[in-house]
Amino acid sequence: MKFHYPNGKQYVPNTNKTVLKGLKSSTYSNRGMTLEEDLNESNTYYLERQIAIIHKKPTPVQIVNVDYPKRSAAVIKEAYFKQASTTDYNGIYKGKYIDFEAKETKFSSSFPLKNFHDHQIQHMAGVLSHQGICFVILRFTTLEEVYLLEANHLLNFWERMLQGGRKSITKGEIETHGHHIPLGFTPRIDYLKVLDSLYHFN
Amino acid sequence: MKFHYPNGKQYVPNTNKTVLKGLKSSTYSNRGMTLEEDLNESNTYYLERQIAIIHKKPTPVQIVNVDYPKRSAAVIKEAYFKQASTTDYNGIYKGKYIDFEAKETKFSSSFPLKNFHDHQIQHMAGVLSHQGICFVILRFTTLEEVYLLEANHLLNFWERMLQGGRKSITKGEIETHGHHIPLGFTPRIDYLKVLDSLYHFN
Repeated sequence: MKFHYPNGKQYVPNTNKTVLKGLKSSTYSNRGMTLEEDLNESNTYYLERQIAIIHKKPTPVQIVNVDYPKRSAAVIKEAYFKQASTTDYNGIYKGKYIDFEAKETKFSSSFPLKNFHDHQIQHMAGVLSHQGICFVILRFTTLEEVYLLEANHLLNFWERMLQGGRKSITKGEIETHGHHIPLGFTPRIDYLKVLDSLYHFN
Repeated sequence: MKFHYPNGKQYVPNTNKTVLKGLKSSTYSNRGMTLEEDLNESNTYYLERQIAIIHKKPTPVQIVNVDYPKRSAAVIKEAYFKQASTTDYNGIYKGKYIDFEAKETKFSSSFPLKNFHDHQIQHMAGVLSHQGICFVILRFTTLEEVYLLEANHLLNFWERMLQGGRKSITKGEIETHGHHIPLGFTPRIDYLKVLDSLYHFN
């Protein structure tokens, strides 16, 4: 069964089952997995090998009505999706605070900025000002290409839009300012390798 | 309307309304606020003044059934509470990764360890090994006393329990190893002040 957010995006439940499925299928081609599934699998890989502790935050939900059947678990009967006020992923790697958002697009020549919300942008600016490591992971689904783009660049492109400029980042700009992450097997998206090349860790 | 978790604990929705209520009532005595409400208010205070970026993670929920009425928001019709695999709060302060759990007890002479789950303990041990700052905030509700106890001490008490020792931490042990946080107005629980006295920040 598939769910969709009000904006038409598919809801992908973040369950252990999903992660296990990811781990299993990562031994062979796992095309068709969502970016979230690939990242969950990668984060599980990092966690199990004690490389980093990075988790996706639960989907924020406003709970309105809960039923308490006797002798069984509480059932949420009415709830609504809420907009997240932060990015989806955070954690710690080599003593540094890590914070990022992951988004995918079907376009192949540019990445629309409407994938981000104003409070996420504010949050990222805040993380940078507190000396955290902040970035976005962008996937071009049709091209099967994944890039890591540091938040300072995203903030520049956002600012350009606010000044009346284009509402997207061109593929060329992402290639210039971002870092291509080759897809692997385990982990599927080895984004920490990119961070190793960008930052000085103790 | 009040909800309760299967374990009988009251469910406190983490809404902006709650935070605003906290901010308002913090100008006078706000006895009766839960520890979560006080911490949300404190975190909002830190966030607005650009002191730190620390958020409570959303309550993890397993979504089973969603309805998509025409022209209105998607309604979650069936969902269940899931056990969190991490602590509830994390973020960044002065460039350091911050991670903690907050719990309250009605007892006044000891704090039961059953308030914590095994994966939370594993998570805290992991955060320490990655050089994060990790602790618990413990409230004795009847005494109206709040303590910050660093995770390494909690891990020792947990280990003592696993070795067949007592299943709680005595009040005296918390006074010895923990740090009393006097309740204030804004912020209500100024736990970062305690961290300032314990860690070297740049």
